[in-house]
Amino acid sequence: MPAITGKNYMERVDQLDTTVWIDGSKLKGKKSESLAFGGVMKTQAHLYDLQYDKNLVELMTYTSPTTGNQIGTSFMQPRTKDDLLKRRKMIQEWAKASGGMMGRSPDYMNTILMALASSSPLLKGMEHVFPDNVVRFYEYAREKDLSFTHTFINPQVNRSQLYIEDPEEAISARIVDKTKDGLLIKGARLLATQGGITDEIIVLATGGVTNNSQAFAFSIPSDTTGLKFICRESFVHGQSSFNYPLSSRFEEMDSVVVFDHVLVPWDRVFYYENVDAARTFVNDSSFQPFALHQVVARQVVKTEFVLGVVQQLVDAIHISEYQHVQEKVAEVIVGLETMKALLVQSELDAEMDQWGCMRPSTVPLKVAITYFPKMYPRFGEIVQQLGASGFVSLPTENDFNSEIRTDLDRYLQSKAKNAEERVKLFRLAWDMTMSAFGTRQTLYERFFFGDPVRLTSDLYCTYNKEKYTKHIQDFLDKS
Amino acid sequence: MPAITGKNYMERVDQLDTTVWIDGSKLKGKKSESLAFGGVMKTQAHLYDLQYDKNLVELMTYTSPTTGNQIGTSFMQPRTKDDLLKRRKMIQEWAKASGGMMGRSPDYMNTILMALASSSPLLKGMEHVFPDNVVRFYEYAREKDLSFTHTFINPQVNRSQLYIEDPEEAISARIVDKTKDGLLIKGARLLATQGGITDEIIVLATGGVTNNSQAFAFSIPSDTTGLKFICRESFVHGQSSFNYPLSSRFEEMDSVVVFDHVLVPWDRVFYYENVDAARTFVNDSSFQPFALHQVVARQVVKTEFVLGVVQQLVDAIHISEYQHVQEKVAEVIVGLETMKALLVQSELDAEMDQWGCMRPSTVPLKVAITYFPKMYPRFGEIVQQLGASGFVSLPTENDFNSEIRTDLDRYLQSKAKNAEERVKLFRLAWDMTMSAFGTRQTLYERFFFGDPVRLTSDLYCTYNKEKYTKHIQDFLDKS
Amino acid sequence: MPAITGKNYMERVDQLDTTVWIDGSKLKGKKSESLAFGGVMKTQAHLYDLQYDKNLVELMTYTSPTTGNQIGTSFMQPRTKDDLLKRRKMIQEWAKASGGMMGRSPDYMNTILMALASSSPLLKGMEHVFPDNVVRFYEYAREKDLSFTHTFINPQVNRSQLYIEDPEEAISARIVDKTKDGLLIKGARLLATQGGITDEIIVLATGGVTNNSQAFAFSIPSDTTGLKFICRESFVHGQSSFNYPLSSRFEEMDSVVVFDHVLVPWDRVFYYENVDAARTFVNDSSFQPFALHQVVARQVVKTEFVLGVVQQLVDAIHISEYQHVQEKVAEVIVGLETMKALLVQSELDAEMDQWGCMRPSTVPLKVAITYFPKMYPRFGEIVQQLGASGFVSLPTENDFNSEIRTDLDRYLQSKAKNAEERVKLFRLAWDMTMSAFGTRQTLYERFFFGDPVRLTSDLYCTYNKEKYTKHIQDFLDKS
Amino acid sequence: MPAITGKNYMERVDQLDTTVWIDGSKLKGKKSESLAFGGVMKTQAHLYDLQYDKNLVELMTYTSPTTGNQIGTSFMQPRTKDDLLKRRKMIQEWAKASGGMMGRSPDYMNTILMALASSSPLLKGMEHVFPDNVVRFYEYAREKDLSFTHTFINPQVNRSQLYIEDPEEAISARIVDKTKDGLLIKGARLLATQGGITDEIIVLATGGVTNNSQAFAFSIPSDTTGLKFICRESFVHGQSSFNYPLSSRFEEMDSVVVFDHVLVPWDRVFYYENVDAARTFVNDSSFQPFALHQVVARQVVKTEFVLGVVQQLVDAIHISEYQHVQEKVAEVIVGLETMKALLVQSELDAEMDQWGCMRPSTVPLKVAITYFPKMYPRFGEIVQQLGASGFVSLPTENDFNSEIRTDLDRYLQSKAKNAEERVKLFRLAWDMTMSAFGTRQTLYERFFFGDPVRLTSDLYCTYNKEKYTKHIQDFLDKS
Repeated sequence: MPAITGKNYMERVDQLDTTVWIDGSKLKGKKSESLAFGGVMKTQAHLYDLQYDKNLVELMTYTSPTTGNQIGTSFMQPRTKDDLLKRRKMIQEWAKASGGMMGRSPDYMNTILMALASSSPLLKGMEHVFPDNVVRFYEYAREKDLSFTHTFINPQVNRSQLYIEDPEEAISARIVDKTKDGLLIKGARLLATQGGITDEIIVLATGGVTNNSQAFAFSIPSDTTGLKFICRESFVHGQSSFNYPLSSRFEEMDSVVVFDHVLVPWDRVFYYENVDAARTFVNDSSFQPFALHQVVARQVVKTEFVLGVVQQLVDAIHISEYQHVQEKVAEVIVGLETMKALLVQSELDAEMDQWGCMRPSTVPLKVAITYFPKMYPRFGEIVQQLGASGFVSLPTENDFNSEIRTDLDRYLQSKAKNAEERVKLFRLAWDMTMSAFGTRQTLYERFFFGDPVRLTSDLYCTYNKEKYTKHIQDFLDKS
Repeated sequence: MPAITGKNYMERVDQLDTTVWIDGSKLKGKKSESLAFGGVMKTQAHLYDLQYDKNLVELMTYTSPTTGNQIGTSFMQPRTKDDLLKRRKMIQEWAKASGGMMGRSPDYMNTILMALASSSPLLKGMEHVFPDNVVRFYEYAREKDLSFTHTFINPQVNRSQLYIEDPEEAISARIVDKTKDGLLIKGARLLATQGGITDEIIVLATGGVTNNSQAFAFSIPSDTTGLKFICRESFVHGQSSFNYPLSSRFEEMDSVVVFDHVLVPWDRVFYYENVDAARTFVNDSSFQPFALHQVVARQVVKTEFVLGVVQQLVDAIHISEYQHVQEKVAEVIVGLETMKALLVQSELDAEMDQWGCMRPSTVPLKVAITYFPKMYPRFGEIVQQLGASGFVSLPTENDFNSEIRTDLDRYLQSKAKNAEERVKLFRLAWDMTMSAFGTRQTLYERFFFGDPVRLTSDLYCTYNKEKYTKHIQDFLDKS
Repeated sequence: MPAITGKNYMERVDQLDTTVWIDGSKLKGKKSESLAFGGVMKTQAHLYDLQYDKNLVELMTYTSPTTGNQIGTSFMQPRTKDDLLKRRKMIQEWAKASGGMMGRSPDYMNTILMALASSSPLLKGMEHVFPDNVVRFYEYAREKDLSFTHTFINPQVNRSQLYIEDPEEAISARIVDKTKDGLLIKGARLLATQGGITDEIIVLATGGVTNNSQAFAFSIPSDTTGLKFICRESFVHGQSSFNYPLSSRFEEMDSVVVFDHVLVPWDRVFYYENVDAARTFVNDSSFQPFALHQVVARQVVKTEFVLGVVQQLVDAIHISEYQHVQEKVAEVIVGLETMKALLVQSELDAEMDQWGCMRPSTVPLKVAITYFPKMYPRFGEIVQQLGASGFVSLPTENDFNSEIRTDLDRYLQSKAKNAEERVKLFRLAWDMTMSAFGTRQTLYERFFFGDPVRLTSDLYCTYNKEKYTKHIQDFLDKS
Repeated sequence: MPAITGKNYMERVDQLDTTVWIDGSKLKGKKSESLAFGGVMKTQAHLYDLQYDKNLVELMTYTSPTTGNQIGTSFMQPRTKDDLLKRRKMIQEWAKASGGMMGRSPDYMNTILMALASSSPLLKGMEHVFPDNVVRFYEYAREKDLSFTHTFINPQVNRSQLYIEDPEEAISARIVDKTKDGLLIKGARLLATQGGITDEIIVLATGGVTNNSQAFAFSIPSDTTGLKFICRESFVHGQSSFNYPLSSRFEEMDSVVVFDHVLVPWDRVFYYENVDAARTFVNDSSFQPFALHQVVARQVVKTEFVLGVVQQLVDAIHISEYQHVQEKVAEVIVGLETMKALLVQSELDAEMDQWGCMRPSTVPLKVAITYFPKMYPRFGEIVQQLGASGFVSLPTENDFNSEIRTDLDRYLQSKAKNAEERVKLFRLAWDMTMSAFGTRQTLYERFFFGDPVRLTSDLYCTYNKEKYTKHIQDFLDKS
């Protein structure tokens, strides 16, 4: 089966009998027709349709090495720097469709699954591991163009360093039994973004797991018995793309995943009860370089989007002459160019790994994801500082369709735009940074790849500082 | 008539036939029963009721010098430092009722009206001024315990320095005619917070006005013919105080005010067509010291509220041992103690003005309002940094009333709180900083007393730097 | 003996046979005539002389409760808020004489000795303590107007958390023997500022001491046998007050103190071999409130000095019209007013302790010393940003006395000053922030009261957060 | 003549009878034997000697297109990206020799002269221009391996926007006469770094010049009659490389240049009395891309040096386990990787200009020089925060050669280094950031390519924002 269309995606997800709870009710009927999911599913469908856009098909797909079908580029195992570049361009093409606002567009998990499969030989010889399952499942997903949600972390019960969960009071999901059919899982995991609107869910222990009963990885269909997605409040406040240009279309939803004695068939298990395998698979595989490459590629597109919005605001109310305004926009420019340069550097320094995969260099990418969580929130500040009171005098689409439109047309016009266009722009900037959707974006970028404190420590600890200290030692010795 | 009760307030506002547009419809029926205004009016009524709380009545009211009635303390002209202290404590008592989230609780405009009346002799001898109207109206408002909205600024059409509005294309409200009955006003003004739910609206030119036709000040009833309040989108997303502990109760609404040939009777005019009077009345009256004193008093209470929320988060998920967490909470503590010390300093250094009013010292207050707009947004960051993914896994009140409550109870509990309490706390922190209500709070504090760039310039320009440069000159001369 | 004069001070210090090493040589001859110490001793003498200035004598001295002599106010045990205010004004008077650049002017240690004596009853009943010695020595010092250096910390060998010094390899000073004559001390201590130019040295364990052999406190004369002061490089680069307006006069010097089997007579021992006493004496005495009060009072004066210099720079090259310049000066203004308000708050909230001493409130002072180390370095940045290339085109006094003066007069003039005055001002700003003296000032303020990370943790841990969390709990409970 | 050796350089400079004033005296004798210049000239000589290092000769030189001699690579006009890379590596090789501390190593002006010559056709057809002189002089300098100082700016008399210098009171250097022999120049210019120790001085009006009499460019020998270099105070405080590892070797000196009716022969004039030529030559030539490329290449090496020093400090006192320490070092790492990526990006995006020169792309370089002036001062802070009191307990080389060495050895040792090594390292860190030399470094990097406020405005104004605003317009139009 070649790469899917939007229609395929919608139908497949609607056919699944996935258990989704939202605001106290179990979701009934087609997901694609619900207020909470309709918008984002339509956007996701649009992404899949781009695979068949005649101007893009060459970029968005490649020929399957096993079936010869044209399949999605985000599944591609890159063998050359050109492959890597193609992957990145494809990722950015999808990102453009949402202004980079969808952190979990399909390429994210496709990329990760590809990386895990490519590095699966790592597991060979370890206990309780099924590297062949990883490869077989990757190929299956690739050819079916499956979509995924995932969970990487445990509930936030107690973040103290010394906390160890009571084994009798299982909160974090764990193995409670092993049968001939598979693993039996009970407990909860955070945070399944897009939970409920994908074909499957991938569950993967992070490197920090210390308890064998929590050290597992697998993928199962979203409608597996016992699996529940408990959504947070939806940030879709209406379907008007005038009022909510972003949240009406790109709100991906986050959910707590509950495993109520869920059976994971053996052929879907990647490894289990092996803390070492969990650590190795996250730290030594190409998981990190490829995941970071996808993330940074998307963040570049998001920064471009922000820059466009910021400069549009400046033009709309005619404030470009002010030095402090120029400085604020320049901050976004510096951010954009820095991210772009780091991304390019990671591709320039890419190296073939032992399994024939062209890995981007991680150092520039780690720097980028240390930098972006500090910079992105600053963008929101800049938007507020520039738009000021403009953000609290915004009427709605209905207002423009009512008899007071004449007043609005006169009193809300700006230098460069008529009232309706100006309000539309300001609503976009507001939805990007000040709506519940916008602040969730900020929060997500702050923590996208984990706790910033931990990321910084990791950068420090893994960076090769010796060549620089040695240079200083030589300098001192010569003095 | 003595100070009013909440019931008086509700009835009076509901009886007015004020024109309020919201989301394309003219508001019908009682304001107090609408979704957009019901919550905040109930809170406002609660504030008025506190005037009769037996533990507070002595603080909240004082004896009218004209009628002998017990009337609201925020109308009091302070003659002594003790009076000033009483005013502040009263302001903070009301602020506590909303965690400082209501920037336009009645004391704000009461204070300003008092200051204008106290300084009205300033206008004497100028052209087109009615100082007696100011005093008479102040006394009338004080004895009736009237509530006010107000507008200080013009629409944000073009913020370029060189922009001068086309007089034929009136956008900013201006005098279009003068008749024996009064002024005729046409055009728009920003931003009437609480527009539509107060007895009256006060319109006052700021010091920067350069056009005589825009240089006026007056007060008129909210339901004056031709007056329209066009609201932004309401940020009340529901009435559940579990889901929306702040926005369901303290969302004050902002509106554009349109004057469609509105008649302002002469006895309600404070001055007109006099740019100098406008400048003098804002810059040389006690407007600034008293308005700043009210603002800073409220901001102190708001910072206390933030500190409480932040520390509750820390306790809930047990992260107080981390040095970077301690540092973040300490930032809030430093902010609070700094604001408190500056407020106290302004009271210590208060001086009697030429009309017998005890004015707080402006320097410490100006420092405070230069400082707070930088600090308050940082609090929102800190909340996000501490709560992290906790903010995107928040179920609703309905969820807790459904069959999945058992799952929530187990999986969303935290170290110090059960699931429901924890979610309640996190929803509070979210509503304070991440909901549309919360970000509007941040925006408001950024710009509460005007553009921060301008405030900083003002502080620089008005500060007495000479004593310090002189000291250096002496030092240099002695060298 | 009443308060001393400058002459008394100079003679007394010159007569001591103190061992001072500097740049590889033992200092010979009168300290007051050496390049390294001559300037600062002259300044210190000037401070003592101010005690006899007829306009200041009432402020600078008070009547001894034991001898009836007029003695130095910094020794005064305050019984009332007025006493506290007098202390502060006296401290600031001395601070003005050095622009706040002398962190160890005599009032610093006088204040601390006073605080220790006032709280000495704390020690009663503990083992190895001599509270009477403390009181007796305080009175002796007070009546003699003795000057002190001191050391509070151990050498910086290894700052790892787990490091415990090898007891066989004594580096930090410790008790190596106890005889009938006193304690025998061996090892080193940091950092004796003014080491070598004071009558005595006070040694005091900080609260963090964990080893009994390092838990002691005492005072001994600077020329005690076996005591050596090893100075860092002197930052006096010349005696010209034109070239080095600050470093030629206020460079206090820092030194490592080596105890080479130094005998401390029993009557000079305050306590020994008692970790609890050490902790109690630092944490529960009035040491902290009074030391902080002195420090913050001085820092206020220093900030005033900085503000004067900054504004003089602005005037000299005529840049006050630039908005970013205004913002930078406003930062200093905000800093100054904040520090002043916190200092005043600590006095307003002062309370009598159990031994009849009027203690300033510590919370505002702790906030001040958390804030100042972040702000002071920023001042140096601002000076550089404003003065820019002006700082690297500065000729010397000799240049102005040479034939190229004509060129200098023409080419180095500025808007507001002739060349010589302008260079003098720029040299002052440079010496304040960019000379070796200036950067040592910055470093000192960063660490004045200890590691900023530790100070912040301490503020967090000791602050009463409960009243704020309780308020939030009430708020939540009512929802 | 091929590339010179260090000996050639020293002899040539010593032979010139250049007028240099320092601390009130005219410098007599050989510059290379003076305290102020001896160290830096020795370092500069070492740079020239590297041109003959057998491992480096291929990198450091190339074959002259006119004479076939091996000449210095920094003079090379790059025709390919490989040439550009060779230039950069050569620049970084020289930078390594001074840890990037010499901002005016010969490659800086060599690069600029090359760029001007390469773009000289720009001038063709304009009035008062001599493009052939530029080319001829470039070739002459290249083949002789001449060294240069330069001045780009006018004295800092009055930085107000409205200031226009009185033409009668010439302060800034200007043309006072034109004769058959050349231009006659009178007035002063700032800041000739290395003024007095180079063969020639290049004088170039910046783009901002508005007065024809100041619009000129030329090069003349340093000992031209009437030319005076007035030095600031020297920051060489001693020749010991133990005490002053950087300032004893890399202190380049800055000077005011006075033109006392200096004659500039016509064949040395590039253009004169042509404000447009001045603007064009700076803005449209390859001056900016090549100068920025050299600057950023050096700043990368300097950041590597800083990182080495910082990590050495961390190791020396064993503080790498602290999270806040890791964060601080990570800031340097982020800085380094960012600068490197931007430099590489400028090379990747290089394009051939119309005259056949391979120009680096300016956008990433402009971003880099907007970023570095904010980051570099932060490095100094980090060094202070990590080293703390270690910087004020530093003995000197003489101390280690005296009898107190035993004490030093014991008491100043650290975890990883013995006392002497530790002091040596700390002195390096101190000289890098806290000595008068170190703070001048910080100041220089703050302003290296001009006022940061102006640089930021320039980045904003010249950046292509349209493609981003257009994307947003499309997005809005589709909504």
